[in-house]
Amino acid sequence: MNKPTKSGLLGSLLLLASVGMAQGNAPQPDSVSGALPRQVILIIGDGMDEQQITIARNYLKGAAGQLLLDQMPLRSAVQILTTEERSGGKPVYVADSANTATSMATGAITSIGRISTSAGTDRDFTTIVELAAAAGLRTGIVTTASVTDATPAAFAAHVNFRLCEDPDSMVNVSYNDIILGDCSGDLKANGGKGSIAEQLAASALDVILGGGSAHFTPTAEGETVSVADVARRHGFQVITNAAGLAAAAPDQRLLGLFAPSTLPVRLQGEGGRTAEAPRPSWLNRIHPYLGSGTPPAPMLCEPNPDSGTVPTLQQMTEVALRQLSHENAQGFFLMVESASIDKQSHERKPCGSIGEVAQLEDALASALAFAKTNPQTLVLVTADHSQAAQLVPYESLFAAFPIPIFTPGKMARIITPEGGLMAVNYATNNFKQEEHTGAAVPLFGNSESLGRIPPFIQQPQIFAITRDYLGL
Amino acid sequence: MNKPTKSGLLGSLLLLASVGMAQGNAPQPDSVSGALPRQVILIIGDGMDEQQITIARNYLKGAAGQLLLDQMPLRSAVQILTTEERSGGKPVYVADSANTATSMATGAITSIGRISTSAGTDRDFTTIVELAAAAGLRTGIVTTASVTDATPAAFAAHVNFRLCEDPDSMVNVSYNDIILGDCSGDLKANGGKGSIAEQLAASALDVILGGGSAHFTPTAEGETVSVADVARRHGFQVITNAAGLAAAAPDQRLLGLFAPSTLPVRLQGEGGRTAEAPRPSWLNRIHPYLGSGTPPAPMLCEPNPDSGTVPTLQQMTEVALRQLSHENAQGFFLMVESASIDKQSHERKPCGSIGEVAQLEDALASALAFAKTNPQTLVLVTADHSQAAQLVPYESLFAAFPIPIFTPGKMARIITPEGGLMAVNYATNNFKQEEHTGAAVPLFGNSESLGRIPPFIQQPQIFAITRDYLGL
Repeated sequence: MNKPTKSGLLGSLLLLASVGMAQGNAPQPDSVSGALPRQVILIIGDGMDEQQITIARNYLKGAAGQLLLDQMPLRSAVQILTTEERSGGKPVYVADSANTATSMATGAITSIGRISTSAGTDRDFTTIVELAAAAGLRTGIVTTASVTDATPAAFAAHVNFRLCEDPDSMVNVSYNDIILGDCSGDLKANGGKGSIAEQLAASALDVILGGGSAHFTPTAEGETVSVADVARRHGFQVITNAAGLAAAAPDQRLLGLFAPSTLPVRLQGEGGRTAEAPRPSWLNRIHPYLGSGTPPAPMLCEPNPDSGTVPTLQQMTEVALRQLSHENAQGFFLMVESASIDKQSHERKPCGSIGEVAQLEDALASALAFAKTNPQTLVLVTADHSQAAQLVPYESLFAAFPIPIFTPGKMARIITPEGGLMAVNYATNNFKQEEHTGAAVPLFGNSESLGRIPPFIQQPQIFAITRDYLGL
Repeated sequence: MNKPTKSGLLGSLLLLASVGMAQGNAPQPDSVSGALPRQVILIIGDGMDEQQITIARNYLKGAAGQLLLDQMPLRSAVQILTTEERSGGKPVYVADSANTATSMATGAITSIGRISTSAGTDRDFTTIVELAAAAGLRTGIVTTASVTDATPAAFAAHVNFRLCEDPDSMVNVSYNDIILGDCSGDLKANGGKGSIAEQLAASALDVILGGGSAHFTPTAEGETVSVADVARRHGFQVITNAAGLAAAAPDQRLLGLFAPSTLPVRLQGEGGRTAEAPRPSWLNRIHPYLGSGTPPAPMLCEPNPDSGTVPTLQQMTEVALRQLSHENAQGFFLMVESASIDKQSHERKPCGSIGEVAQLEDALASALAFAKTNPQTLVLVTADHSQAAQLVPYESLFAAFPIPIFTPGKMARIITPEGGLMAVNYATNNFKQEEHTGAAVPLFGNSESLGRIPPFIQQPQIFAITRDYLGL
């Protein structure tokens, strides 16, 4: 929560330079020349690991089909780096969306829960949005989560704890009386920049689209008006529905908040079903070798009836591209997040995650269409971390053995459109929310990415690749 | 189990051609020209998915380190394709090593458990080894499993069930009286080619190295001598230890069997420990919100004391390369398998899997060294299918909540050489062996692979890529 002093900024820039130089396979240096503006569209599928992608491929395109992702000319793998919450701490092998978004947005490695601040020392890292805006480029964030959620937040805000999303959630941030974190040091009264919503309202962002209206209704710290009103004072047009999105003035900054928090997802399990625990028989409860375990009945995925009430990720992406490219000779940086691949996986809802991969695919189609008519556009798609869902055999590989064999966790068995039977297992813990996992995640790039990204990178390099492409 | 009639071979070749043509992104056609022989080294990490690779990277090189795999210039993703056991069956979303090795060896899609035979119709698919040998190239298989195990078997044998490994395991193949499969139709008496061991002994392979001596001691069907003796009659020198391997005549076919079945692995958990179930307290057994669950104590990985008794995968690979390249102007095909990444994961032994990734890395180093002095060498590394292990948080992401949170499965907590704490979860079932999972797997290639392999392929394309490179 450093104040933006010159020495702080210099320190950050020196750090950024060293991150770039530290790359094992540095992208080719770029000289930004020619008349065309350059832009980067960074699409993040939250929790979209190889299991999630395969599950979505099988459902959306069939086992022998191809996603749009599969047709991208570049594929790389991204190692996630996380550290303990102390300066010089040991590596941590499983991340959250806050520290991973910080890596992508700033090139730095930090600890779980932090939004573009340093582990232990709580120093602000300069973000790609801040660098781009300072250089005269436009910037935007689009998400199906609250715009104050960890992934979008890390591109334009700095707090030490991700849940400090609005002025009412700064001190002893709690959930049902359990204190989870505290951002007292980020209060304006204490020399900080305020909550994430307040920082977004005061940011240089040109486009902010997603959910999270509930975080913009509290009164801003030291003000008599809401955070949304502060955003209006900073020049944002504030819209709340699809009609407003379509009618947004293209030459004015845009804040669109289409739900109180996360936007409704596209798909759900039949009748709202999630993954469920197999039901052991009476005999099986006496001894695990006896009786039987009944797996959950097969189900279809169906449209979520609530999903029509908000703009799609594709609609938001297209409006963001319209706003950012409108009479703009300087280029832009846009981050687009399909957030609920992760959130639905935490809640053991495979149909929900599949639908959000479909949303990402649609947004990617719009990004690629934009890149086709605007050649100097780098389109990258990646995930921030891996997740809990596992595609497992519909019937155990060991079904020939005459004892009950079933998952100790929760399972959904989905009937795919091609008539197959696909089982998804969730068993990282016994809590109401699954854990993240630690596998490296994929990265996909359009033709502009060729020659700029080696087959294996570390997550902070995404910042350097973006920065170098934009000539910042 | 078709007899090798001309029409059968023609049918297979037509099928292979159509597989090649059906590729969405066909490799560039190759004209094999120039004086240098061409060779392919296909290295398979059984079950080596992105979770396994990240776990191994963190342990072997550190979170910020790079495996040799990470330094390969090409990375692609491979979608696994499996079908039900009937002609024209529905897709199956999780595979086993038999049907996946069949895809890589023959370009065909088949059902679980089958060794290079067709689902439903039990027709033989021609393998890359058979094609290469027919064209005058040398061929070899090297594995840390029994050489009769599914992965190596599919490159040179044809049976309808993978456990038909020797003459004594052909009819009503059972495990503790549970009948798992039957290969009566493959008996020589019934017009078949016999067991996998018998087919290897009669194959055109120049090098066969691995475990599985127990499958070569039974009397061959219709003979009075053992399968090993039949192999000798076919011109194999048969060796059984590292000294014999080092001293093998370079101009004679080589069958090396260094253990009765699978070779001992390199690493094990401290004192032989595997992943273990957290121990719920007395209160927690009364209600899951009460008491505590004690996770397994952290442990180191240590050398497996049995591993020094057999050659390493690298030693076997180097001898195979020596044999195959000795005074050979025609090139070769070599398959190298690190088999126990998978087998140790089935048994919930993360240290074991890590050590076998290290073995694969060592074999890859030898393959790359060979390719350096023999430029027309295509080196590919891939996995056959994904596996159960998940890298999960060492401490739950939800540890702030004052209720016991732990995996419903089994967990190991490993102290890494860099001093980190890495937790690996296994929870696909409650059986003594974990299930495979269905995620696409990575594929890595050396510089010879560039331009020949798109970023996303289907597993049967590996056959076509290999065949085209060798000009077969």
